[in-house]
Amino acid sequence: MTESPADLIITGCTVLVYDDQERIGFEEDAAVVVRGGLVESVTTAAAVEGAPAVERIDGRGQVAMPGLINCHTHAPMVALRGVAEDLPTEEWFNDVVWPIESNLTEKDVELGARLACAEMIRAGVTCFADHYFSMDAVAAVVEECGLRAHLGEAYFSSQGAQGREKSLEFALRHRGGAGGRITTALAPHAPYTVDDTDLTATAELAREHGLSVHLHAAENRDQTDASLARHGVTPIEVLERTGLLDVDVLIAHGTGIIDRDLPVLERASGRTAVATAPRGYLKFGWLTTTPVRALHDLGIPVGLATDGAASNNSLDVWESMALTALIQKSTTGDPRWLTSRQALHHATLQSARAVGLGDTLGTLAPGRRADLVLVDLTGPHTQPVHDLAATLVHSARSSDVRTTIVDGRILMRDRQLLTLDVPSVVRELGERLPVLLDRGHGRRIQDYDT
Amino acid sequence: MTESPADLIITGCTVLVYDDQERIGFEEDAAVVVRGGLVESVTTAAAVEGAPAVERIDGRGQVAMPGLINCHTHAPMVALRGVAEDLPTEEWFNDVVWPIESNLTEKDVELGARLACAEMIRAGVTCFADHYFSMDAVAAVVEECGLRAHLGEAYFSSQGAQGREKSLEFALRHRGGAGGRITTALAPHAPYTVDDTDLTATAELAREHGLSVHLHAAENRDQTDASLARHGVTPIEVLERTGLLDVDVLIAHGTGIIDRDLPVLERASGRTAVATAPRGYLKFGWLTTTPVRALHDLGIPVGLATDGAASNNSLDVWESMALTALIQKSTTGDPRWLTSRQALHHATLQSARAVGLGDTLGTLAPGRRADLVLVDLTGPHTQPVHDLAATLVHSARSSDVRTTIVDGRILMRDRQLLTLDVPSVVRELGERLPVLLDRGHGRRIQDYDT
Repeated sequence: MTESPADLIITGCTVLVYDDQERIGFEEDAAVVVRGGLVESVTTAAAVEGAPAVERIDGRGQVAMPGLINCHTHAPMVALRGVAEDLPTEEWFNDVVWPIESNLTEKDVELGARLACAEMIRAGVTCFADHYFSMDAVAAVVEECGLRAHLGEAYFSSQGAQGREKSLEFALRHRGGAGGRITTALAPHAPYTVDDTDLTATAELAREHGLSVHLHAAENRDQTDASLARHGVTPIEVLERTGLLDVDVLIAHGTGIIDRDLPVLERASGRTAVATAPRGYLKFGWLTTTPVRALHDLGIPVGLATDGAASNNSLDVWESMALTALIQKSTTGDPRWLTSRQALHHATLQSARAVGLGDTLGTLAPGRRADLVLVDLTGPHTQPVHDLAATLVHSARSSDVRTTIVDGRILMRDRQLLTLDVPSVVRELGERLPVLLDRGHGRRIQDYDT
Repeated sequence: MTESPADLIITGCTVLVYDDQERIGFEEDAAVVVRGGLVESVTTAAAVEGAPAVERIDGRGQVAMPGLINCHTHAPMVALRGVAEDLPTEEWFNDVVWPIESNLTEKDVELGARLACAEMIRAGVTCFADHYFSMDAVAAVVEECGLRAHLGEAYFSSQGAQGREKSLEFALRHRGGAGGRITTALAPHAPYTVDDTDLTATAELAREHGLSVHLHAAENRDQTDASLARHGVTPIEVLERTGLLDVDVLIAHGTGIIDRDLPVLERASGRTAVATAPRGYLKFGWLTTTPVRALHDLGIPVGLATDGAASNNSLDVWESMALTALIQKSTTGDPRWLTSRQALHHATLQSARAVGLGDTLGTLAPGRRADLVLVDLTGPHTQPVHDLAATLVHSARSSDVRTTIVDGRILMRDRQLLTLDVPSVVRELGERLPVLLDRGHGRRIQDYDT
């Protein structure tokens, strides 16, 4: 036992734990001891009675579990939430989002990121993988608000070699930033906007610098069909032939992954992960979703995500967790597939692996980073509790998260944000919206043409 | 102008209103004046400045809209929330739910109903259509908690003629109860558990007594296929041949409605409505959902519902609203179908029609019952607002409802329930659960055999 006071002790809560075979259990009337940003122990409430601590939280009636990880988003796009509704993918990109994004300034990105981080902290997200532009501004917001993030500066081949150089420069400069809370990735946009030369160069840079790559690929079936028609290969096969499956890669969406991609992905198992954001697939009217079951059978982690709020309308990873379970059941026609425990496994360990933090996050165990949330189960909608995993996934909501903690620091306590001022962000962003939304110039940052 | 003080004036809010073609609009900086349980007027905040009122609510930053209507539930089943997870429909009924329901007492139903009403009030539901057993207990809870309800005592043909007689007796005795907040229906369970003789008798009783009928039909495609194989007719055709489509009928689910049913339903348009509870269809792994578009084309209202919490895990009609939009887009493959405004139309006017209250509920207009909710849009997840309908449907959550009002009476104010005591209900229900959940007796109330 250490004699100095712990930084934080949470007592009386139920703790979601994993056994050595990654089976979920729930320790009741337990305690979590936090020191130096790490979980020091998960023990009984009795064991820490009277133990010295700088801060104590009474966790009775609450579940302590790993904070949620948003494995693929474009956080600053909350500024465009609701701006392009009920449109097919192509019109969404070409007529609204990419024209508006040609107006983006670093200040817009900063304010959007701040609003997004407020939303995520309130929804129990402790880490997010962001893929956007002007990412210096996002990194600064991460530093300020206390979240953990896996950041990549997005680029298109239309930017020339400068795009990928900027992405590399960002990744090297910010790696390990914010006291180690920032990790980085190279971030080519997608195989339909970044050519093979750039993808190949990106794979080489990743290997040379020990970086991972985060990109969109096989987002939907149309993209896969278009790739086959034009190049004779699928987007996943493009990743393979450009060397991206030889490095650590996080693939966003993958609803266009088809059977012939599976052996390709199997060879990349251990380096590859997929992020699924099912709400947006439904909203765009796509007929497929991420093939979670096939990826599971290949041992490929599937992390949960929200994509940007311009398509998803929210950054609610809790909802992604519930929807992943529901949509997997309905698309496989198998009510036994993707149980609540599986959904929680995706939300915790698999999401941690997806963002390259499988050794430090994903479970509350000694030596892991103290990124956790307390979920209040006393509301009428979460009672009675017959099956706690089901209560968490199918009855609880992100609004039941009362407290959000990253690296042992409390970012939200009893629903009060401690590091961000929402009204001032909303006001400042609101003043900028007329200029940001102007599409009179007829420009767009890129064409969507799968 | 009346000179006596209004009962309630809500000022400064944005009000969801309909024009005479049922197009949604939003009146900003508006006010709602309530008198005698009715909406007296929807006007400007300026017009009611200084106007006398017994009670005033500052609605700034909030949207006033009609309260949600849960068009098909089994409220007391919240007691079984999470008890039968990840199971196919048949096992869910035969191995868990129907054995447990054979233990049900009136006290269990009362406590379950109380917990359910607490959950619904907190989620912005102001009226629910309940279809269950021991409904006297539910009616008493409705009286006590202030909600509005459309109640029916469920029955199977296995109960003999007593079943339908009890259902009739309940409907006649409680009609107009709780100061007019209770309306009633005859409630045969479904065509696969109630025979044609009973269904025909029910239709006759409905006509004779001016009652509507609320039942399950064509819940899923398997039921339709089984009905065709056994009887040569679909469940909807069973309703037709037994006369149920000649009276006002509320059909729960209808995911097994097939093309040949459409002309049958078209002939019943004006008397027929369908309740959709999409979450459960996904969870059971059903491959179809309610054919909302086809029903829309026939002019048949589709109300939103949650079904019971034993299958749906929650009574969150707000989630049903979002899911209806999302699942309609994905099953039709058309992102333009079922816009946010359509979803709000389903949640308000169509749901009111579905429960037979189309003339008194569904819109905040002079003379309508004052059943409304105030939705807080100041949270980071609902900002900025570019499209208020989209914000409500796709970004807001039931937890953003701050205030719930029925017949002008405030049932929840600033998230505090005023008519129900959740901790005591949870405690009392918890003590009864071991006996309620016992399945050692090997009985079940009914066999599921479509």
